[in-house]
Amino acid sequence: MQPVHGGNLAWAAAIAGCDSEAILDFSASINPLGPPQSAIAAIQSAISQLSSYPDPNYSELRTALAQVHQLSPEWILPGNGSADLLTWAGWDLSELAATYLVTPAFGDYWRALKAFGAKVVECPLRAGVGSRELGAGDKGTRGQGDKGDMEAGEQFTIPLNPHSSLLAPPNSGLLLNNPHNPTGWLWRREEILPYLEQFALVVVDEAFMDFLPPAAEQSLIPLVQKYPNLVILRSLTKFYSLPGLRLGYAIAHPERLNCWLARRDPWAVNTLAVAAVIAVLQDSQFQQQTWAWLPPTRSRLEQELSQIPGLQPLPGAANFLLVESERPSSKLQQQLLKHERILIRDCLSFPELGDRYFRVAVRSTTENERLIKALWQITT
Amino acid sequence: MQPVHGGNLAWAAAIAGCDSEAILDFSASINPLGPPQSAIAAIQSAISQLSSYPDPNYSELRTALAQVHQLSPEWILPGNGSADLLTWAGWDLSELAATYLVTPAFGDYWRALKAFGAKVVECPLRAGVGSRELGAGDKGTRGQGDKGDMEAGEQFTIPLNPHSSLLAPPNSGLLLNNPHNPTGWLWRREEILPYLEQFALVVVDEAFMDFLPPAAEQSLIPLVQKYPNLVILRSLTKFYSLPGLRLGYAIAHPERLNCWLARRDPWAVNTLAVAAVIAVLQDSQFQQQTWAWLPPTRSRLEQELSQIPGLQPLPGAANFLLVESERPSSKLQQQLLKHERILIRDCLSFPELGDRYFRVAVRSTTENERLIKALWQITT
Repeated sequence: MQPVHGGNLAWAAAIAGCDSEAILDFSASINPLGPPQSAIAAIQSAISQLSSYPDPNYSELRTALAQVHQLSPEWILPGNGSADLLTWAGWDLSELAATYLVTPAFGDYWRALKAFGAKVVECPLRAGVGSRELGAGDKGTRGQGDKGDMEAGEQFTIPLNPHSSLLAPPNSGLLLNNPHNPTGWLWRREEILPYLEQFALVVVDEAFMDFLPPAAEQSLIPLVQKYPNLVILRSLTKFYSLPGLRLGYAIAHPERLNCWLARRDPWAVNTLAVAAVIAVLQDSQFQQQTWAWLPPTRSRLEQELSQIPGLQPLPGAANFLLVESERPSSKLQQQLLKHERILIRDCLSFPELGDRYFRVAVRSTTENERLIKALWQITT
Repeated sequence: MQPVHGGNLAWAAAIAGCDSEAILDFSASINPLGPPQSAIAAIQSAISQLSSYPDPNYSELRTALAQVHQLSPEWILPGNGSADLLTWAGWDLSELAATYLVTPAFGDYWRALKAFGAKVVECPLRAGVGSRELGAGDKGTRGQGDKGDMEAGEQFTIPLNPHSSLLAPPNSGLLLNNPHNPTGWLWRREEILPYLEQFALVVVDEAFMDFLPPAAEQSLIPLVQKYPNLVILRSLTKFYSLPGLRLGYAIAHPERLNCWLARRDPWAVNTLAVAAVIAVLQDSQFQQQTWAWLPPTRSRLEQELSQIPGLQPLPGAANFLLVESERPSSKLQQQLLKHERILIRDCLSFPELGDRYFRVAVRSTTENERLIKALWQITT
């Protein structure tokens, strides 16, 4: 069965006829520089603590995260990956009249919204600025994407016009990610700000925001104390290359987070994840290395992809690139797996994109060269 | 704030004025023989896999668990501790007209039931057999325990009489644990069987069942294929002494588990927990050691507790003992913490028990002696 998420190595290995470890994985957008040694050392050292339950208040962890964001610990709730916290955000959204979902959307958004019966109104991404009025999305149907919406190289904007006289319907929510997955588009803080005034609840998944250096990032965290209707989801396992360990966190008003705490199980985060995160938050060397590595490596990968006939990468702000392909991307995926043990992310789980796009992580220069070489061989 | 679960070492250390590591913890019922070396080795070895996502199907893990129970893998769903799975069981129960909850009940049952707005009918444990008719529990009010219900040394039975002409109300559920926490009472399989015929859904938390050797255990797992209205929750982290790692699993009809899968996040179990569990399931040496250690050590602890004036332990089948105390148990707890750095589990979070009971884990003989000595000093 075709996986709906990247990083499904068990599935890929079965097709490639090799061990999972032999797959070169471009499908999950994980920092290739990690995990940092600081994380490994912290995990090793915390193994001796596994016979005790984690602190259900996660005081030390919340304090460490709070310091990074200059907030009080009660504004932060760690979870078993940001997908765990998305579940509870989905619950809150489902209690509203409707949730406006910017599409193409990460498949897990659909899971969290459908779990609690949220009414979803799709808002397809549009090229250009201000070309779409809020409410028109009601007519959108999942799976009927308009190719014109996703032309490579154009500028994207949130499809709801913040300066429109049409305000958001009463008691409705908005769910989006920034940078956007899978396009890699980054909205400026000011572009999202008007929606905080209009929507009863705005959930912004910033799973990839930490890949942007401090001077370039557009996180809404500095606004959270001003907007009790704002929820920010963050992941730690992409930047620090620890998706197997599971750790994310939500930043929102303490009253909301206390509601989530009352619903979910008391020990959501394992002891080794706690130790690793406390260590990596102080690992400024690893952070600087990542911020120095990504922009030139991504530019080079983008340029090399654009030179391959039939491929057109979109510019992206995160550690992945969405690529438009004249050939069916699922076929490219199969060929790369079988002949080169390289796994790319098809976009079949994004119905708006379908077989015309694939996504690749930015990996090390050597690994990126392997991908480029393989794509040249297959496509020419 | 008084913790509502055992094992809150951060809270205990603050009172005792020492590091968490210095606390001798009798409050969490964790196997003192563990964690097994097989688990530690598997965790160490899996650290190199943390840069990949866990397999969202958890195929290898489900297969390993299924083999132990002679089931197909689709009857098993692993979770981030059994508390995670309790959340989804709580959802299913909340969709019924009412949930009959055997009390005193593990505090997290209240959390999971209240999260989804379940209507709870308390069924206080009764001494003696068949003394209570189903439905009488409707009048029960949390916090108004009758001391007579919990006399030490008497036999307990599920308060709903399976042979009664009063059947369970239509479309209602039953939630209990076996062995029961905190009394340690073990119901025989045949005693629970009639409820499977009466209730729309029966959730049995068998978190401590693996502490009973195969010849003595009373798990309902052999019945699960016959009763689609049966859900069994199991923990792996108590027996294998890995509560910091988080791993439990549910056994139930595949259709129900697929519903849960569609609701919850895709990567609920971390990679290191997967590796540890696959290893320990084959560690029959550790299992045999535990089954050989527990019964004589528990008997001795029970006997020694019963010799202390004012204390009366109840007989228990699991790795803990509930003790009735003439002195307020919260006061005992404070004294033990401050003077001996020993943490016992007060029962304030079980309103039926309140300050007249405390719970202690069965630990090593040396550690148990330390507890006994400290209790003698305090109580005489």
